[in-house]
Amino acid sequence: MPFTYERTIHFADTDAAGVDYFPNYLSICHEAYEEAIAASGIKARAFFSEQNLMLPVSKSSADYLRPLYCGDKVRVTLKPSLLTENSYAIEYEMVRLGSSAKLAATVRTAHVCISTTTRERTPLPADLLAWIQAG
Amino acid sequence: MPFTYERTIHFADTDAAGVDYFPNYLSICHEAYEEAIAASGIKARAFFSEQNLMLPVSKSSADYLRPLYCGDKVRVTLKPSLLTENSYAIEYEMVRLGSSAKLAATVRTAHVCISTTTRERTPLPADLLAWIQAG
Amino acid sequence: MPFTYERTIHFADTDAAGVDYFPNYLSICHEAYEEAIAASGIKARAFFSEQNLMLPVSKSSADYLRPLYCGDKVRVTLKPSLLTENSYAIEYEMVRLGSSAKLAATVRTAHVCISTTTRERTPLPADLLAWIQAG
Amino acid sequence: MPFTYERTIHFADTDAAGVDYFPNYLSICHEAYEEAIAASGIKARAFFSEQNLMLPVSKSSADYLRPLYCGDKVRVTLKPSLLTENSYAIEYEMVRLGSSAKLAATVRTAHVCISTTTRERTPLPADLLAWIQAG
Repeated sequence: MPFTYERTIHFADTDAAGVDYFPNYLSICHEAYEEAIAASGIKARAFFSEQNLMLPVSKSSADYLRPLYCGDKVRVTLKPSLLTENSYAIEYEMVRLGSSAKLAATVRTAHVCISTTTRERTPLPADLLAWIQAG
Repeated sequence: MPFTYERTIHFADTDAAGVDYFPNYLSICHEAYEEAIAASGIKARAFFSEQNLMLPVSKSSADYLRPLYCGDKVRVTLKPSLLTENSYAIEYEMVRLGSSAKLAATVRTAHVCISTTTRERTPLPADLLAWIQAG
Repeated sequence: MPFTYERTIHFADTDAAGVDYFPNYLSICHEAYEEAIAASGIKARAFFSEQNLMLPVSKSSADYLRPLYCGDKVRVTLKPSLLTENSYAIEYEMVRLGSSAKLAATVRTAHVCISTTTRERTPLPADLLAWIQAG
Repeated sequence: MPFTYERTIHFADTDAAGVDYFPNYLSICHEAYEEAIAASGIKARAFFSEQNLMLPVSKSSADYLRPLYCGDKVRVTLKPSLLTENSYAIEYEMVRLGSSAKLAATVRTAHVCISTTTRERTPLPADLLAWIQAG
């Protein structure tokens, strides 16, 4: 069953057009990814900043289908998939909740695993690989 | 009983020092304020962007006591107080949760009520006044 | 000649991995777009928030090729192109400046023109169309 | 002569009230501080993330006097002052440029110097001390 994350759109997310600023859709998806990682038992702090490897986003793409206003509730569903032994992708769906839920955006990020010592690509760590394969 | 709001520190909140970027403490407090307003029954979207009045922050002050790392859980407690018939303040405490909870920051914002038609200060609307006085 | 925009990477742009947070590459490209619009003689404030039409981003895609650190200088080059009578795309290249300039990212955004009264797609305004066709 | 920094208000800075979101005034001031540090010859990247000391903001206060709209130009003037051998403050004035320049905000940040090894306060490094005393 895919991981889901719920969140309210806050004032800080919006811009002068009155709606969620488009790069913030990506931030909200990344939050969902962080929560999914944490829920899997991998400690987010170690995962995102303290190992001798990095997992930077190498690509992103997004389709913005509906505006999101301050106070709107969204649910993000995400699904990881393995690309190679040192890369993976995450697909996200953002749904605006309410009397009739509506798909607000679809987002995809691709990630690579880099050794901080060699600066080269390196195989994914076992716990992350397990999480992706369970996805 | 004061309103409380819990939230995880996300990657987007952090900076290259590895911890929550100091202006983001204010954003997290404002989120708590938005949630408190919504919980009081006032619809956040109308409140923050669609009435013929604005409630801008006129002052802020903050004491940053502890760093917050990605994955940390924080609880924000807030307490509004009336300043004049057209202004109010909110005091926030941010606590980092965990085996021993620690005060991470105290923040205060002051707000004024401005008519969008006259651009002058105008008395607070009744529902907001009620919420402040109940605080 | 394509429009260029230069900018320093600031602390606010970075995250706990020590480098520019990936959604912020999109924000920096949008800044370049705003500056290009302003340089063309279209007033940014009217353009982005006060007409009876909106020009939301409908799609974005990005390839993140190099990390950007606090203090790095980047140059964004952008090129608009017409998609239909009510939509257009912008392609951006972000180069990290220095002794040897390096391509740091390529980004593409697609935009649609929506009437704020009918909520339907509507033809691009003449000044924007002229700017795109000159691109 | 105090250091000055000029900057355009971008869409990313604004919120659904149509104006610069209040925590972003602090970010813009911090940008000015980063630029002042860089202009003094101290390399920003080393300064902000790579030494064995940290200079976190311990307090901030701000008076928000005028709204700032997308496309507005602001000039930030800043002045550092020594507080103790391991702390200092920066005072900022933000002026909205235009036919008649107007003070838009005053901001103050206090900073402490912390050793990353002992986690205790430690004297300011000589180059930073020199910059503060020249301020």
